[in-house]
Order: sequence, then structure tokens, then C-alpha cells
Amino acid sequence: MSEGKATNITWHEGHVTRDERARLLQQNGATLWFTGLSGSGKSTIAFTLEHALVQSGRLAYVLDGDNIRHGLNKNLGFSAADREENIRRIGEVAKLFADCGVLTMTSFISPYRKDRDLVRSLHVEAKVPFVEIHVATPIETCEQRDPKGLYKKARSGQLKNFTGIDDPYEAPLNAEITLDATNTSPQEATVLLMRYLQQQGLIRG
Amino acid sequence: MSEGKATNITWHEGHVTRDERARLLQQNGATLWFTGLSGSGKSTIAFTLEHALVQSGRLAYVLDGDNIRHGLNKNLGFSAADREENIRRIGEVAKLFADCGVLTMTSFISPYRKDRDLVRSLHVEAKVPFVEIHVATPIETCEQRDPKGLYKKARSGQLKNFTGIDDPYEAPLNAEITLDATNTSPQEATVLLMRYLQQQGLIRG
Repeated sequence: MSEGKATNITWHEGHVTRDERARLLQQNGATLWFTGLSGSGKSTIAFTLEHALVQSGRLAYVLDGDNIRHGLNKNLGFSAADREENIRRIGEVAKLFADCGVLTMTSFISPYRKDRDLVRSLHVEAKVPFVEIHVATPIETCEQRDPKGLYKKARSGQLKNFTGIDDPYEAPLNAEITLDATNTSPQEATVLLMRYLQQQGLIRG
Repeated sequence: MSEGKATNITWHEGHVTRDERARLLQQNGATLWFTGLSGSGKSTIAFTLEHALVQSGRLAYVLDGDNIRHGLNKNLGFSAADREENIRRIGEVAKLFADCGVLTMTSFISPYRKDRDLVRSLHVEAKVPFVEIHVATPIETCEQRDPKGLYKKARSGQLKNFTGIDDPYEAPLNAEITLDATNTSPQEATVLLMRYLQQQGLIRG
């Protein structure tokens, strides 16, 4: 440590700690892992929450198919091994974002318990808060909504291994939060999740 | 868009834009890509800059071997294909961090021009600022310092394909910044880089 000439900065060479960044941002980083069927409302809730957080001065970021599948994970397909690696990489990146102090939301079906549990264990090991949010909208509702027309394609056989139709969705056994978009609007979900983040001390009131 | 009941938040469902997060953080995200030989001083400069930025209220984060090789890229080895994929993934993650508004530093030898140019093109495509910083400390100095004893091992044949010894380092042709740790201390480098970030409008004075 020595005094710089040009500024009043104290010089350090080691890593900035998670606590220092948390003080700067006035929040603690965390991963909010949304899981649920296609059309369950994961992304709508995640983006509504992201807006509410940023609007109230908190740094939040959503990792979803748009920014992951065409970038980091564009060299992965849909084999069992690739799906597992897809979730693992997303988990590792979310952990880095949360370590940096960001309230990080991930919005992926992530149907397998084993994969989600691996991501949770990566966070526990690194002492990074992990919140599993099960958007448990019934498949009948998801299929009725079918915003991308995917259920239709799956039912007609055009799309194989579709979660909920001919591939399993393994519901979380111990999700921190369970929501059902049938009776909870994205706004109501956001209010509920903001309250949870406050209660956990991740954001201030 | 509708008014929420419990708060005075205006509800949105779309993505938060890069500009909105930049306003919140009062800075623009960017990737500062450090490249140079082992022992050139990349990490020391990156961490000194990270401290100076955080101490002056800016959000900065370093991606380096410690948080990448044991996490996201732990399933990669040192084959040509794996080295390329290593740099590609780091580039994609840095791009996401910068998109989130973070001043993101990467500290990896990244010896091949082709790999660095790919990362640059990913950033250009996404309109995310990319600053290549060549820490061009001469190999004689790096080998004399040899902080991890790696040059010794490479010279004795214990370590194969070591950059600068029996594997090439392809110096950048158009790096935004070139530094030599022989005549520039980490503190001087930090002052110079902070000035550059200000001139580029990435941080305010």
C-alpha cells in the first residue's frame, strides 16, 4: 500500500472484496433462479422485477435465452450432455454476476432437479445467496397461452423432447419461493419478491 | 404499463436498457482486455485499477484465472481447441458484464491474435466498448521476475507449450493501449488508464 501522486487514492493490489462492492452498491448480490415450464411466465416476472429494481436504484440483470443461447452457449445443442452443460455455464456466470454485487435473475426452463441442485451447490460453496423460484403455473394454462406456439408444435410432433409433453419437468422440492401466474400477476410477484429480498437483507427497504 | 398498488413504480415487462443501467451507475460498461506474457504484470495492474475504480465509486470487476479456470472453464484443458474456447467464453462473459454496466477487466495471457480479434468482434457487434491493453513487458524481465516459477519449469522442460518459450505470443497490432511494466508502475498505469476511461466518456471526471 502506498500513496498515489496524482490522486488521493490508497493503492492496493489484491482483489476488491464482495463486501466492498456491496457497500458501493448498497445491496448484496444474489442469484434468483427462475424455473418453470415454457409459457409459465418466468421471463415476464423476471423482467418486471428487473425494471422495478433498477427503477428503485438497484443494479439487476437478467440472463435468459436471448443473451445466452446466441452468445456464451451458442456452441451447445439439445443433447442431454449439452443441456446439462448449458445450465452449468449459466449457473457459473450467474455466480460471477452475484459475486460482483448484481441482483442476477436467470430465466430458463431448467427442468432437471440434478442440474439446478448443482447450480445451488456452486453458490453455497462460494457463499453466494441463491434463491430458487418455481413458477408453477399449471401446464394446462401454459399450453393455453402458448405465446411462442411451441406446445402446438410439440403436440403435432414437429418438436421433440419438449418439456411437459414428451420430456419431464422435475418440480423443485425445496424452492425458496413458489408462484403461480394463474393467480399472481407479474406486478404482484414483483412486490412479493422485492419484499423477500428486503427480508433477506439483500436490498434495503 | 400500469400503476402498481403497493409502490409508486411504473410497471414494464421489456428488458432494462443498457442506457438505464448506465444512468443508474453513472458510468458506461466496457471490457478492458489485458493481454501479455506470464509475469508481465497484467493482474497487478488490473487489480490496482479495480481498487482505484471501486474506491472512487465505480463498479469494476476482474475476470482472471482464479474465478474462471476453477468455475466456468473448469471443463477445458490446454489443447488448441480448448484454449480457443477458453478465450471465447471469457469474451462472452466479459461482454455480458459490460452490457450490465460494469467496468470489466480480463487478465489472461490470451496469446493468439485470432482469439482476441474474435472477442473484439463480439463486442463491436453488440456495440459494447472494448479496450485491448497490451502489457508489453519484455520476456527477459518476465522471466527474471518469474513470480510463479513457471519460466524455470518451462526452461527445464517440465512445462510444455509455455507462451514465449515454446509457444508463440502474438503481440497485438492495434491495441488501444500499450504498457511496459519495466518503466510503468501499477499505480502509474492506473492513473493513465483512469484518464483514458474519462477521455472515452466511460467514467466521469
